[in-house]
Amino acid sequence: MSTRTRTLIRGGLVLTAADELHADVLIEDGRVAALAAHGSDTAAGWTADRVLDATDRYVIPGGVDVHTHMELPFGGTFASDTFATGTRAAAWGGTTTIVDFAVQSAGRPLREGLDTWYAKADGNCAIDYAFHMILSDVNEHTLKEMDLLVEEGVTSFKLFMAYPGVFYSDDGRILRAMQRSADNGGLIMMHAENGIAIDVLVEQALARGETDPRYHGEVRKALLEAEATHRAIQLSRVAGSPLYVVHVSAQEAVAELAAARDKGLPVFGETCPQYLFLSTDNLAEPGFEGAKYVCSTPLRPKEHQAALWRGLRTNDLQVVSTDHCPFCFKGQKDLGLGDFSKIPNGLPGVEHRMDLLHQAVVDGHISRRRWIEIACATPARMFGLYPQKGTIAPGADADIVLYDPHTTQTLSAASHHMHVDYSAYEGRTVTGRVETVLSRGDVVIDHGEFTGRAGHGAFIPRSTCQYLN
Amino acid sequence: MSTRTRTLIRGGLVLTAADELHADVLIEDGRVAALAAHGSDTAAGWTADRVLDATDRYVIPGGVDVHTHMELPFGGTFASDTFATGTRAAAWGGTTTIVDFAVQSAGRPLREGLDTWYAKADGNCAIDYAFHMILSDVNEHTLKEMDLLVEEGVTSFKLFMAYPGVFYSDDGRILRAMQRSADNGGLIMMHAENGIAIDVLVEQALARGETDPRYHGEVRKALLEAEATHRAIQLSRVAGSPLYVVHVSAQEAVAELAAARDKGLPVFGETCPQYLFLSTDNLAEPGFEGAKYVCSTPLRPKEHQAALWRGLRTNDLQVVSTDHCPFCFKGQKDLGLGDFSKIPNGLPGVEHRMDLLHQAVVDGHISRRRWIEIACATPARMFGLYPQKGTIAPGADADIVLYDPHTTQTLSAASHHMHVDYSAYEGRTVTGRVETVLSRGDVVIDHGEFTGRAGHGAFIPRSTCQYLN
Amino acid sequence: MSTRTRTLIRGGLVLTAADELHADVLIEDGRVAALAAHGSDTAAGWTADRVLDATDRYVIPGGVDVHTHMELPFGGTFASDTFATGTRAAAWGGTTTIVDFAVQSAGRPLREGLDTWYAKADGNCAIDYAFHMILSDVNEHTLKEMDLLVEEGVTSFKLFMAYPGVFYSDDGRILRAMQRSADNGGLIMMHAENGIAIDVLVEQALARGETDPRYHGEVRKALLEAEATHRAIQLSRVAGSPLYVVHVSAQEAVAELAAARDKGLPVFGETCPQYLFLSTDNLAEPGFEGAKYVCSTPLRPKEHQAALWRGLRTNDLQVVSTDHCPFCFKGQKDLGLGDFSKIPNGLPGVEHRMDLLHQAVVDGHISRRRWIEIACATPARMFGLYPQKGTIAPGADADIVLYDPHTTQTLSAASHHMHVDYSAYEGRTVTGRVETVLSRGDVVIDHGEFTGRAGHGAFIPRSTCQYLN
Amino acid sequence: MSTRTRTLIRGGLVLTAADELHADVLIEDGRVAALAAHGSDTAAGWTADRVLDATDRYVIPGGVDVHTHMELPFGGTFASDTFATGTRAAAWGGTTTIVDFAVQSAGRPLREGLDTWYAKADGNCAIDYAFHMILSDVNEHTLKEMDLLVEEGVTSFKLFMAYPGVFYSDDGRILRAMQRSADNGGLIMMHAENGIAIDVLVEQALARGETDPRYHGEVRKALLEAEATHRAIQLSRVAGSPLYVVHVSAQEAVAELAAARDKGLPVFGETCPQYLFLSTDNLAEPGFEGAKYVCSTPLRPKEHQAALWRGLRTNDLQVVSTDHCPFCFKGQKDLGLGDFSKIPNGLPGVEHRMDLLHQAVVDGHISRRRWIEIACATPARMFGLYPQKGTIAPGADADIVLYDPHTTQTLSAASHHMHVDYSAYEGRTVTGRVETVLSRGDVVIDHGEFTGRAGHGAFIPRSTCQYLN
Repeated sequence: MSTRTRTLIRGGLVLTAADELHADVLIEDGRVAALAAHGSDTAAGWTADRVLDATDRYVIPGGVDVHTHMELPFGGTFASDTFATGTRAAAWGGTTTIVDFAVQSAGRPLREGLDTWYAKADGNCAIDYAFHMILSDVNEHTLKEMDLLVEEGVTSFKLFMAYPGVFYSDDGRILRAMQRSADNGGLIMMHAENGIAIDVLVEQALARGETDPRYHGEVRKALLEAEATHRAIQLSRVAGSPLYVVHVSAQEAVAELAAARDKGLPVFGETCPQYLFLSTDNLAEPGFEGAKYVCSTPLRPKEHQAALWRGLRTNDLQVVSTDHCPFCFKGQKDLGLGDFSKIPNGLPGVEHRMDLLHQAVVDGHISRRRWIEIACATPARMFGLYPQKGTIAPGADADIVLYDPHTTQTLSAASHHMHVDYSAYEGRTVTGRVETVLSRGDVVIDHGEFTGRAGHGAFIPRSTCQYLN
Repeated sequence: MSTRTRTLIRGGLVLTAADELHADVLIEDGRVAALAAHGSDTAAGWTADRVLDATDRYVIPGGVDVHTHMELPFGGTFASDTFATGTRAAAWGGTTTIVDFAVQSAGRPLREGLDTWYAKADGNCAIDYAFHMILSDVNEHTLKEMDLLVEEGVTSFKLFMAYPGVFYSDDGRILRAMQRSADNGGLIMMHAENGIAIDVLVEQALARGETDPRYHGEVRKALLEAEATHRAIQLSRVAGSPLYVVHVSAQEAVAELAAARDKGLPVFGETCPQYLFLSTDNLAEPGFEGAKYVCSTPLRPKEHQAALWRGLRTNDLQVVSTDHCPFCFKGQKDLGLGDFSKIPNGLPGVEHRMDLLHQAVVDGHISRRRWIEIACATPARMFGLYPQKGTIAPGADADIVLYDPHTTQTLSAASHHMHVDYSAYEGRTVTGRVETVLSRGDVVIDHGEFTGRAGHGAFIPRSTCQYLN
Repeated sequence: MSTRTRTLIRGGLVLTAADELHADVLIEDGRVAALAAHGSDTAAGWTADRVLDATDRYVIPGGVDVHTHMELPFGGTFASDTFATGTRAAAWGGTTTIVDFAVQSAGRPLREGLDTWYAKADGNCAIDYAFHMILSDVNEHTLKEMDLLVEEGVTSFKLFMAYPGVFYSDDGRILRAMQRSADNGGLIMMHAENGIAIDVLVEQALARGETDPRYHGEVRKALLEAEATHRAIQLSRVAGSPLYVVHVSAQEAVAELAAARDKGLPVFGETCPQYLFLSTDNLAEPGFEGAKYVCSTPLRPKEHQAALWRGLRTNDLQVVSTDHCPFCFKGQKDLGLGDFSKIPNGLPGVEHRMDLLHQAVVDGHISRRRWIEIACATPARMFGLYPQKGTIAPGADADIVLYDPHTTQTLSAASHHMHVDYSAYEGRTVTGRVETVLSRGDVVIDHGEFTGRAGHGAFIPRSTCQYLN
Repeated sequence: MSTRTRTLIRGGLVLTAADELHADVLIEDGRVAALAAHGSDTAAGWTADRVLDATDRYVIPGGVDVHTHMELPFGGTFASDTFATGTRAAAWGGTTTIVDFAVQSAGRPLREGLDTWYAKADGNCAIDYAFHMILSDVNEHTLKEMDLLVEEGVTSFKLFMAYPGVFYSDDGRILRAMQRSADNGGLIMMHAENGIAIDVLVEQALARGETDPRYHGEVRKALLEAEATHRAIQLSRVAGSPLYVVHVSAQEAVAELAAARDKGLPVFGETCPQYLFLSTDNLAEPGFEGAKYVCSTPLRPKEHQAALWRGLRTNDLQVVSTDHCPFCFKGQKDLGLGDFSKIPNGLPGVEHRMDLLHQAVVDGHISRRRWIEIACATPARMFGLYPQKGTIAPGADADIVLYDPHTTQTLSAASHHMHVDYSAYEGRTVTGRVETVLSRGDVVIDHGEFTGRAGHGAFIPRSTCQYLN
């Protein structure tokens, strides 16, 4: 028998996507070695180098946030969190893996973009990370590179039906990329908004003098999200490929996903906390305050929230990610003063996802197991990280959170750890709090104190989508 | 530390609804004490009184069959399997829990019917069992008794929209029972066929001289199953209660369930292997052979199978049970010679469910985890048996099957263990075979030999439906 | 050339379901002989015994109201309009044909019921009339009588899924009647509410002390109308017969009809002015006032009106009738004081349909041609009266209304001509007014004065449904 | 009284979209003056300069074909019918009005394109004609010109989602044009196929050596027609404009239209005889024969025909036009030998529409009145020609066909009058034949002989869409 370091989490209620177990968790080095029932002889016999008392705590898998944009260049500025600050904030919030987006520069190889992102992250991350690849071009060269990236563990590719002139791909390029992914096992992630039509509405709104942040929500119409969602689904049917639609916000888009899934199509959807907890009421806050809530797809009127919650319950939506993409209110968001179309698109959120979704458990929107499923297990499965990530099971990485379900906390820029000067949830009180976080067996958050380090986090090559089987 | 008996299952691939784990399973007395990763120090250190070698085997939860009719009185005869013979056959087939139907005699208390069934099962069962209650009357008295039965662990109640004059309840009685279950947490199970309309078609068919078994399938029209399914759903919406539709066979009925679920309604559906593997082609076999396949809802044309498989994949159908209700071809089925309406309704199947669904894995209809989910985990959750039954996890009952996924076997009345003189799957070869079965830690099937005993099986009081949360 | 009496309607705008024509209408005796364009030599050359000046008037077909209940026995009393008073009021309102319901008494022949209604109407009617037959029994005898009635010109048969113990037919009887009508060309008209379930809710409401009229609307749930509508549609599919659903009031029922029609099924729906202009707000009027609005299907919350208007525009609803069935507030409606279930079901309306629907034209809900289509042409076609009734065309009966589209009037019991002591539309002002009415060429209303006579109206035998082709 | 020329059509059955009348039709100069019932004194008294005996004939409105392409430049050649030959062939086939498409050349004013088409038609047409305008550019200039064209009587504008680099408009241009038409009353006509995606599939097919005509049908997938149809509908919702989808061929596209219409949206669809009577079986005829059937949208597998017929019955499709666009098999179609993408797209058909749709009456697909509605009345209403065209009513143009419903004829290039060297219906025998045709009162076809002249046909300025009200 070797002399591995043993950590024991004792006395908690282990929650996974499948089970709620009164069990102790034994960690050998960085992995879960075993689970044993409370009160069993086996559990009673366990000893360890370090014992964590989880009495009255949930013991949950570390969160897997499959949609973040650290240091993203956008609209002449950069998302304000670096991989260092962003992943540390993630850890504070109980998230132990992020999948960020490497960006291909138009006309340049995927390789170059990916290497740039490797460099940004390398040595800086507090938690583990992986990459999707944003395709700015689809051509013979980049299609071949897709195959190589899949082999390298970058197994998902994002395309945009929005942002003409920037990230936009036309339907032909989308179809080609989907065909390729049908062959190489990659998963196409789609920003589904009809950007061509939206740009017309933007131009017309500005011409009418409608420049305030709230017009951002009015021109990016729900029907145009639904249209693009439907179109992406049809293209994926033609290509014979699966499809993952990012940041779904409109009830009409949920309906398109539900209809596709009723047909048995491999079509998936993700939403984000901002669409579940915020609305166009925020975009319409007085003065320029609404700019804090400018993101795309945009926030929707409150009545869309019920459809999103229902979609999460019926599994027409499978994942909640953050689309974390923070820009400071002062110095960044204000690029769009007098012209909403120049406001950098994005919200901070990586730190609050696990807590906000626990609040949804408290509010009765979802069950405890579904909380873990949409925040940990399914994201891991969808993007080829399972069972290494997303669950607590023998053999899995010991990415584990001790969660106090009873304490309340108030969200605020004054107390959060993201590198941004405002909170989208300023003053909101939620029930539940991350207490202690392990990343591959190391305690990186200890009773609310950061005990990790930049560079602990490792790049995780991913297998292809495991949610299809 | 106590001196509990320890059993160790070593070297297998543990399959649950959520995970596929290379893990050893340690059993203390009748329960799963712990799981540990192959190759971990913890696993390496385990010793046991008995070690089962699961190399190259799946280690799966024992099957949970929530729809059986042992000794059911029907049409002047009785289902040919007793609790003794039927549960032994179940064990052979890797099923370790059945939920059978106690029957209220019209005009008599539920209590009396339930006690009768307790008596039939007591001391006779090879595996654990529980009961649903069939309501023949819905009135003030039986409604009150429903509350008592829920407290006693009989938490589900079956009603019939078919069989006028026998089990049939009209919509008012159904509504009342649903309202009561909305209060007491009971789950209404519905045989959804418009029996009033079907009886007209039966009478007309017989009057035209259409007496062969195949007419059974023609008069019990898919539209009339779909109609009743829709009606039951609407009544459950009025009552504010969940609904579980038994033995769904028509694609139009699946569509009704899918539409209800898209609305977020707590509506569930079960299908059975006979609808997935057999068809009206069997009902039309020459001579009186078709009588072997007479059951209600009836077998459907082959093209319905695709909709059932899709429903199982999209989770519009959640459970596969057997509706095991065998009648011998000689002496029972032949009551309906010359009049299909007198053929006792039912098929033998309790022994073959796990194998047939594994064949579906081999055929690519479902994944391995989905196999376990629809055959073990969800049935257990749906009927309040989780996590005691339906999974392999610390604290669960050690109802475990070592399954050989590579061996082939040929199904036949010559080799099956059910007490009935024919097989609905005569001559069909499937890949995969149950090797060894544990019921609460005891080996009841050992490499294909029955090593259990009548009376080992215990009555399991159930909590209310756990699938709603 | 004979010496027929010639009447000429000159200078009006002729509206039919198809056309808006500046044309003069020449009547020879009781029929339309010819139409000629204003300003044509032909029109200029016409002379007549009587010339009606229609300048600035619409010239429209007399209304065809296919759902009235004169003198209907219900709940121990009789609808307060006789054929004499009711048809006179109809004439005042621009309706020149009614189709009333003869009632079979349970256990008695259809013949007897029909003869009773012939006798009630004979010699009393101011305008033409025809009969549907209400089936209280469906059995071998009445099924055979259906064939005879079709030959006699009574070609439609009403069944009730509501009113158990009174008019209620179970699904088997409904199926048999539908099968028969599939053979003999009769059209089944359905009162689609799940009366069995509703009666449970009625009993429970009364037991809770909910006795006011507004509870009538609460217990007769929209879902239970939709359920019955769906069920009737499925039964008609099994029978292979067309179906006409009467007095549709719930948006969910409209959705069922729309879904059926998208499949190409011969399924039709009628609504009534009370569902288009009144709502549960009226049922909830203080004191016992709500009783004035008690009818079944019941009035619905206001938001259902939009679905009904849309259904009329998309032709998912084809007909607007009145379901005229008046009971006096004093002496009849008050039978239900303290028990809403004893309030006689029905509203007065035969006089106001044409005006209320013209108001809908003014309000932009429907076009002028659609007004004529749903109130005249389609009812006539649906029930085998076309082209004798429902249009203005050479050869048609000269049932013609000169309609002033500009004058306003205020509806009131003080001014209406129906034999009932209240108006459901008391105080409502509408734009448009019937000026002059011809029935088979005879002027029966002349500038608002009744110039007709009891006994002018004749029984019209009908052919089978002409709307299927 | 003037001395107008009077023509009398005596003894026929007058069919309109609304009525079937035994009536005589009196024409004064070019217009219908009056209709009178057979046997009326009025009819009996009529005299005329010319009397046409219509005994045993249908008297129907002349056909209105709203989709023709005479002399269209396409793929380096021109459609082979001139306005002279094409309108004469139309007259032979009972069509008395065409609406052809004027084409804007990219970068040039609409005015110039329209004037070119005026010049092509002027003095050459045998029957009346009007124009739609094809927009190749959507910009500030052309948007303003749209307003002018609406005033000039060119009230509909065609856009293409197919043919990138030729007629293709992107979604932004489509949205702008729709917005403009929402203001000026114009009707947007859409070629709904995702041409961007199709071009990818074309390129890939050719690269695989799939060059035969049948691949034209394979690459232009039904899903991509349905996608574009859905997208056009959503864009029209955003713009608040009506939408008319041309040449619908896929059942999935019909489903999109039906769904839109169920919502009450002003969305309309047209199909063509080739989609109703031909299929991919024709495209797959041996050798290069399939090229005769190459048009876009393409012919579909036979099973789509049922959905099209159902759509015509349920009014989810409103119009049947021909999309007449003939290219000779020798010398034109053969441009695509060895490369299906170079085959000029289009079929001859203007001569056969009325006959093929009468065959549909004989076959039971549609009723006689529906025949007239989809071929005459609705096209006229949809495009602002009613009641001048599309009906037989006092005041309408005397565009009238005497139709023999009993004679059979065999369609063939040997006998047709279109200027093209093959028939898409070669050898097909149909029941019914045009006998005599009047255009504004002049007999242009007399018992099968052409008696008209080039230049008789006049340009008809159109009002805006009349089908919305």
